[in-house]
Amino acid sequence: MKIVKFGGSSVANAAQISKIIDIVTGDVDRRIVVVSAPGKRNSSDIKVTDLLIALANTVLAGNDYEAELSTVVGRYAEIQRDLNLSEDVVDVIEADLRGRIENRGSSDAQFMDSMKASGEDNNAKVIAEAFTKAGFPAEYVNPGPAGMLLSDEFGNAEVLPESFEKLATLKQSDKIQIFPGFFGETKNGEVATFPRGGSDITGAILAAAVNADVYENFTDVDSVCAMDPRVIDNPPAIDCMTYREMRELSYAGFGVFHDEAIVPAVRAQIPICIKNTNNPSAPGTMVVPQRSPDERTVVGISSAPGFCSIYIDKYMMNREVGFGRRLLSILEEEGVSFEHTPSGIDNISVIMASANLSKKEETVVNRIKSELKPDAVTVEHGLSLVMVVGEGMQYTPGLAAKATGAFSSAGVNLEMINQGASEISMMFAVKDADREKALRALGSEFFGV
Amino acid sequence: MKIVKFGGSSVANAAQISKIIDIVTGDVDRRIVVVSAPGKRNSSDIKVTDLLIALANTVLAGNDYEAELSTVVGRYAEIQRDLNLSEDVVDVIEADLRGRIENRGSSDAQFMDSMKASGEDNNAKVIAEAFTKAGFPAEYVNPGPAGMLLSDEFGNAEVLPESFEKLATLKQSDKIQIFPGFFGETKNGEVATFPRGGSDITGAILAAAVNADVYENFTDVDSVCAMDPRVIDNPPAIDCMTYREMRELSYAGFGVFHDEAIVPAVRAQIPICIKNTNNPSAPGTMVVPQRSPDERTVVGISSAPGFCSIYIDKYMMNREVGFGRRLLSILEEEGVSFEHTPSGIDNISVIMASANLSKKEETVVNRIKSELKPDAVTVEHGLSLVMVVGEGMQYTPGLAAKATGAFSSAGVNLEMINQGASEISMMFAVKDADREKALRALGSEFFGV
Repeated sequence: MKIVKFGGSSVANAAQISKIIDIVTGDVDRRIVVVSAPGKRNSSDIKVTDLLIALANTVLAGNDYEAELSTVVGRYAEIQRDLNLSEDVVDVIEADLRGRIENRGSSDAQFMDSMKASGEDNNAKVIAEAFTKAGFPAEYVNPGPAGMLLSDEFGNAEVLPESFEKLATLKQSDKIQIFPGFFGETKNGEVATFPRGGSDITGAILAAAVNADVYENFTDVDSVCAMDPRVIDNPPAIDCMTYREMRELSYAGFGVFHDEAIVPAVRAQIPICIKNTNNPSAPGTMVVPQRSPDERTVVGISSAPGFCSIYIDKYMMNREVGFGRRLLSILEEEGVSFEHTPSGIDNISVIMASANLSKKEETVVNRIKSELKPDAVTVEHGLSLVMVVGEGMQYTPGLAAKATGAFSSAGVNLEMINQGASEISMMFAVKDADREKALRALGSEFFGV
Repeated sequence: MKIVKFGGSSVANAAQISKIIDIVTGDVDRRIVVVSAPGKRNSSDIKVTDLLIALANTVLAGNDYEAELSTVVGRYAEIQRDLNLSEDVVDVIEADLRGRIENRGSSDAQFMDSMKASGEDNNAKVIAEAFTKAGFPAEYVNPGPAGMLLSDEFGNAEVLPESFEKLATLKQSDKIQIFPGFFGETKNGEVATFPRGGSDITGAILAAAVNADVYENFTDVDSVCAMDPRVIDNPPAIDCMTYREMRELSYAGFGVFHDEAIVPAVRAQIPICIKNTNNPSAPGTMVVPQRSPDERTVVGISSAPGFCSIYIDKYMMNREVGFGRRLLSILEEEGVSFEHTPSGIDNISVIMASANLSKKEETVVNRIKSELKPDAVTVEHGLSLVMVVGEGMQYTPGLAAKATGAFSSAGVNLEMINQGASEISMMFAVKDADREKALRALGSEFFGV
C-alpha cells in the first residue's frame, strides 16, 4: 500500500485535480490520498489557507466577513463547476464555514485552527466527489473520528501515540480514502492543526500507521536537485538519498520538506518518494533508510546565508574548567540559540543564525567580557554555511582535498571547516559574498556542472 | 635587564657551570640567574632531584639513609672539586640536608618539598661561589626571604600576588643574583615547590617582577624546531613565534615549556628567548606577544597520538534542546575531561585523550545510551591530532587546500578537520598509524623537508 500526498499546487484547480485522479487510479496500491488546501493557481494567486486566515481575523475583529467568505467558497465553486460536480458540495462547504464561524470553540487560537483546517477539509470533500464522479469509489475521511488525535497545542499540535492503531484500520476500506492534511482533533473533539509542513506530517503519520510500502509526496518538481538550481544551471537530479542525507541538506537551504514533518515516516523506516504531479512518469527522488555505499559519494551540496560567529580568545582557556559551559549558559540565559561551538586550544567560536543573535548582540558580548574575561571577543556577521553531503564520505579519502582545492582555485577563503563531526557531511563557512562562487566551484568539482 | 634561567643539564657539572659563567658575564644585562638542580651528566645518570626524592622516601620509611645522603652530597662535592671551590660549601650543603631531615616541618608532603627544593637551593649556593671564585661578584638568593611567597599546596604551589612587588627589588643589587628555581616559602615560612616545570615558573615570575626586557631560557638545543626532529629529518628552526603559537604547538606534542610555567611572563608581555647553553651564540627562538603577519604563515606543525572520539548520532538531535549539555554533564559526572566537541546537524563527537576515558568507557557509553537514547554511539581509539599553526593563517587563502591536498596525495584519510575554531591553527585527526606519514606529507608541503 502507498500513501499519496498532494501539495497545494497539485490540488489548486480542476485541471490539477484531474491529474491526481489519473495518478491515484493508475496504481492499485494508491489507496489513501492526503490532500492540501487549494494552493496558488498562478504566481499572483492567493492560497486558500491565506484567504481563510484573513477571514478568521475579520471575524475575530467583529467586522463584516461576507465578501471574504464568498471568495473562499468561490474557490471551491470554481472547482465544482469545472469538474461538473453537484452543486450540493458547494452548499455543504458554505454551511460548514458558517458553522465554524458560529461555533467558535474554546479560544481564538482554536477558532483560527478550525478555520485554517477547513481549507484542507473542504478540499478533501470536493476531491472525494471528483473521484466518485470520475467513476472511482472514494470517500472523504474526517480525521478526528478516523483516529488522528492531537495534543491541544493549537497551531502547533503533535500527534498522540494512540492515533496510530486506530488510523491503521483505514487500510481495510475498499474505497479510496481522501484524507485532508494538516489537522486532527484533540481529545475534547476540537480541531487542531499541525505546525508548518502540516500536510506532510499527516501523510507521514498515515504512512507509519498503515506501514506503507512507500510514502509518495507529489509536488511540482521531477526530483530533488543535487544543488540549488537558482545558482547552478542544470544541477543533476538526486535519484536516491538517505533520511540523514536529506536532513543535512535541508539544514542549509534545501526546502525538500520541513524536516520535522516526516519524522513519523522516518521512525517507521517508510521509504519516501518525491514525485511531480505534472510529470508523474518521472521516477522522482527516493528518500530511504539506507543506500548502498558504492553509489555516488557526494549526493548533494546545499548552502544558507545569514550566519554569524562569536569568536572568543583567552590564553590558557584550555585549562579553565567549565569555560565552555559558562559561555553556553550566558547564551541560554539570553535566549540565544546556536548551532555549533567549534573550539581550539585557547579559543572557542559559537556559530548561529545572525537573526538569533540580533538585538542581544551587545548584551551577550558585554556579558562574555565581564563574566569570562577573555583576551578578545569578536562577532563576524555575513557568513554562509555550505554543506557537502553524502553517505560514505567518511571512508572516501581525498574529498576534503577536492573541496578545499575547489575553494582555493576559485579564490574563496574558508572561514571555517568542520569535517568529521558528521560521518556524512563536510561543513564550510564562507563569507556571504563568496557563497555563490563557492557553490559554483563545488558544482564543477563534484558534479561537473 | 634579562632574566636568565638554566635547566638541569646546563648546571649538571663543573664544565657546564663554567659555560654559564661565560654566558652570564658576557652580557651586562644578565643580572638575575635562575638555576635548576644538577641534571644528568650523561644519558645513564640520575638527576639530583630524583636522588633527593629517593632519600626523602628512605627517611620517611625510617631506614638508614647515610649512603643516599652521601651520594647527593657527592654530586656537589664533585662540582666543588672540579671548580676548585672552597670545601666549606660542601660542608654547608651537608649541614643543610641534615638540618632538613631533622626538622621535618608540618607534614610528609612539606618534608618532601623541602628535600626536593634542596637540589636547586644548594646548587645555587655552589654556583654563586663559582661566579665569585671566577672574579664576578655574585650572591645566592634565598627565595623565601627575597619575596617568593607561595600557597601552601605542597608539590603544587602557586605564587601569591604580593610576591611580585618585593621580588622587584632584586634588580637593585649590584651583584649577580643566583636564584634557585622551583620553590619558595609559604606565609608560615615553610618551603613549598611548584608543580612540573618549576624552574621555568621561577624565571617567569622574576621576569614579570623586574619587568625584564627578555626572559632567556637556556636549554640544550639551538632553537625550537618547526617539526618533530624524531620524525622529520632537518626540520627548519623557528626564529620567532608568538605566545599563542607556542601554546597551540605545545598542545600536541611540542615540549618547549610546560605551558602553564610561563604564564607570569606572558601576562607581563615579556619576550622569551630559548637558547642553547652549549652554543650560546646561536640566536635561539624568540617567543613574543605579537609578530608581524608578513613573516612565515605556518610557523610549526606538531602532533600527538593517543586520542579517541565518541561519536553520537541521533535523528533530529539538532532540535533537541540541551542535548549537548546533557552529554557534557555525563562526562563531568564521570570525571572524564575532554578536548573538543565538534557537532554536525544530528551528530556530535567528543574528542579526548584515550587515557582520560580509559576505564570509564563502558559506563559513559551505557549512560549515553540510556539517558540520551541516540541512534548510534561509537568510540574510536587510536587517533592522532595534528596541528598546523601560524599567525595570519586566518587570512591566507588556500592553506586548507595545501594541507588536505598533502594528506590526500600521501593516502592519509582525514578523520576530522577543525579549521576556523582557532584563528591561528588547523587541527586534523588521523589514525595513529598514519601520523608519521601525515607529518612527512605536511613537512614536504609547508617546509620543503
